[in-house]
Amino acid sequence: MGDYKNMWENLDMDLDKHDILCSALPESFGEIYLTQKNRPESMNYFNYALAEVHGARIEELQKSKENGKKVVGTFCVFVPDEVIFAADAIGVGLCSGSQFWIEDGEKVLPRNLCPLVKAFVGAKISRTCPYFQSCNMLVGETTCDGKKKAYEILQEYMPIHVMDLPQMKKEKDFEQWQQEIKIFIKRMEELTQNKVTVKRLKEGIRLANRKRAVLKRLYDLRKNIPSPISGLDALLVSQVAFMDDPDRFITKTEQLCDELEERVKNGIPNTKKRIMITGTPMAIPNWKLHSIVEALDAEIVVEETCTGTRYFENQVSEEGNTLDELIKNIAQRYLNIHCACFTPNTGRMEDILEYVKEYKIDGVIYYNLSFCHTYAIEYKQVEKILKDKDIPLLNIETDYSEEDIGQIKTRIEAFLEMI
Amino acid sequence: MGDYKNMWENLDMDLDKHDILCSALPESFGEIYLTQKNRPESMNYFNYALAEVHGARIEELQKSKENGKKVVGTFCVFVPDEVIFAADAIGVGLCSGSQFWIEDGEKVLPRNLCPLVKAFVGAKISRTCPYFQSCNMLVGETTCDGKKKAYEILQEYMPIHVMDLPQMKKEKDFEQWQQEIKIFIKRMEELTQNKVTVKRLKEGIRLANRKRAVLKRLYDLRKNIPSPISGLDALLVSQVAFMDDPDRFITKTEQLCDELEERVKNGIPNTKKRIMITGTPMAIPNWKLHSIVEALDAEIVVEETCTGTRYFENQVSEEGNTLDELIKNIAQRYLNIHCACFTPNTGRMEDILEYVKEYKIDGVIYYNLSFCHTYAIEYKQVEKILKDKDIPLLNIETDYSEEDIGQIKTRIEAFLEMI
Ligand code: SF4
Ligand code: SF4
Ligand code: SF4
Ligand code: SF4
Repeated sequence: MGDYKNMWENLDMDLDKHDILCSALPESFGEIYLTQKNRPESMNYFNYALAEVHGARIEELQKSKENGKKVVGTFCVFVPDEVIFAADAIGVGLCSGSQFWIEDGEKVLPRNLCPLVKAFVGAKISRTCPYFQSCNMLVGETTCDGKKKAYEILQEYMPIHVMDLPQMKKEKDFEQWQQEIKIFIKRMEELTQNKVTVKRLKEGIRLANRKRAVLKRLYDLRKNIPSPISGLDALLVSQVAFMDDPDRFITKTEQLCDELEERVKNGIPNTKKRIMITGTPMAIPNWKLHSIVEALDAEIVVEETCTGTRYFENQVSEEGNTLDELIKNIAQRYLNIHCACFTPNTGRMEDILEYVKEYKIDGVIYYNLSFCHTYAIEYKQVEKILKDKDIPLLNIETDYSEEDIGQIKTRIEAFLEMI
Repeated sequence: MGDYKNMWENLDMDLDKHDILCSALPESFGEIYLTQKNRPESMNYFNYALAEVHGARIEELQKSKENGKKVVGTFCVFVPDEVIFAADAIGVGLCSGSQFWIEDGEKVLPRNLCPLVKAFVGAKISRTCPYFQSCNMLVGETTCDGKKKAYEILQEYMPIHVMDLPQMKKEKDFEQWQQEIKIFIKRMEELTQNKVTVKRLKEGIRLANRKRAVLKRLYDLRKNIPSPISGLDALLVSQVAFMDDPDRFITKTEQLCDELEERVKNGIPNTKKRIMITGTPMAIPNWKLHSIVEALDAEIVVEETCTGTRYFENQVSEEGNTLDELIKNIAQRYLNIHCACFTPNTGRMEDILEYVKEYKIDGVIYYNLSFCHTYAIEYKQVEKILKDKDIPLLNIETDYSEEDIGQIKTRIEAFLEMI
């Protein structure tokens, strides 16, 4: 790592506290990631990206800002990247995954709240996340109760635009979501002083589609037996996707996929149990569940989560020659993301069953961040559809702490033996 | 009580289980309510209404149903009564307040969920609530995560129409709410086979306005020192409002207010501490907090809750000669309810400060049902505005169980001594 002290200071960060955060990351990354055997060569880039997540990438953001670009932070896959790209701004995903921030989050939030929400609020108020500190604006959405209300707290610290996501998928909700996207475009135009034209929006759609396509390519490769990449590594790629420069990310991930294709040709089938994770997102550095499962010699081959399939499934149509048409296309794709914040959310059930087949799944682990009500309640439905098809299912509700690791390990061990 | 066994049997109720529920109610009601000194004579009607809550009122519903009327059950003050009245249907509030149902609710829901949600689901699946059993349809709304997703479970048991409530109050959200009301009208017309005409909707508005006006009159009387009615009794009136025939309720509550006016004339000022409750709703038979506070010789003079001011504040304008105009009026009133499920919800802060003045409040108790995220997160804002004005505030987070009663009592005692 270079010397970024000055930069962090300029970002008004709490340097001492940030040091503590930074000192923990390399160790856990080393233990979990670098001890994996036979990793693809091309993962080196993602190792580097992770190592420089508070360094080189932040430096890039500062340079872009000096050249007049704006940086916006997002918390959910419902915020359309297409619009951010079209306004020539930079988007970074802020859904924070570290236990480090929980304590600060709990200073202003109830304790019995989803760790993701507590972490992002803690990250901001402790001034230890250089992404937050680099943002000109945040973009929230009315998805779950926790986030919806936590944005009111963040608003005291920096500007935030909240998108009013409909909670259902009635016909009128698609129109209402288009209107919300229009309001978002206007706000982005104000922020960046760039006009979102048809041409620029089309380019934005194309870029976002390319990014989704390469992630889809990566996931399709995981359908092979054996998967040419570990679940841990695939997760890291997804996590980096939220932070990295999109063009570079696409290039590096294509390279990785090329290497993985070679591997597939020479692959020798293994007998590892093939696991699907379904549920809530896993933000950097939340590798808890993956590291437990894969240390037990099973492989995670797909994540039906927002740091997985929900991020890249379905493309935005590039057809259309007016803003209205393109916005309609964007609304269509995004309202077809199957998050549990919708009622009903039957599309998710169909997705899960389809992935079970496509990825040749031996068992499913339901990953539920503590106090996430929507996913917790939806568990029963997932249980039902999987039971009907005799697919083994294990429910893991957990937060970011390390206290329950032993217990989770025991439960997963028993689960793997059973399937 | 009469003999309602046959009726309950016809409603497909679990009679044995229901017996257990029924045997507990009179005792706790007797202890909490009937031991109060110097109660208004006119409370007799409300005692009766409570005693017959599973009896005479249910019998009325059955008679109405035999005459072709439909009964719909609601869970939130956002569902407009005006529409239900206009379709010549009967609305009953189902927001359940009994610990009895929690165990059954937890069979299909996560344990760490708001007791209100667990109770209403438990009430349905255990077949021990004659209101649920009497309903032809339920009407849900997308307010909080817990309810939103719990309706998916209820849907497996009976028909339910869910209204998609916007989560913000942007200009376009008022339009979107009007559209939702129109969809609701259509659904009610289908259910009842009655046309919602301008004339009928106007009548519905008038009836709902009259009901709100009498509750307002009651609350205005509580502004006197001393309040001519206990907080417990006022709460009972509000709770009965959700179940009772609206015309009779209005008559009986007017009578009560007449009596209270007489009392005010002869009232001798007392020195009891005047308490406001703010937060989550209290459904029958949830008298937990009120009974603790008033046993400690303080008086609760206003509830900024959905079983309090949020239920009756603001009227629907009767101006307009088209359905569109009337629907717009309805949307206006309802979207001005200040529930924490909205972001932002600054109107609630203004209300609280205003009530502090109007009701001459000595201290505020924040009542938060466990795991209700939206109200729990909003606590900090309420804390801030009250601190600025030096108004004492106590935060009570609790459920329906009796385990923490001793501890809450101690905390409230200390609070009352301090103020
Ligand atoms: S789980 Fe739902 S609310 Fe959370 S990031 Fe994904 S889409 Fe957004
Ligand atoms: S995991 Fe659940 S509670 Fe947490 S931010 Fe996502 S939707 Fe909200
Ligand atoms: S607190 Fe909010 S969601 Fe609950 S009944 Fe009241 S208005 Fe409805
Ligand atoms: S009290 Fe809160 S969590 Fe419970 S039903 Fe009402 S809004 Fe939902």
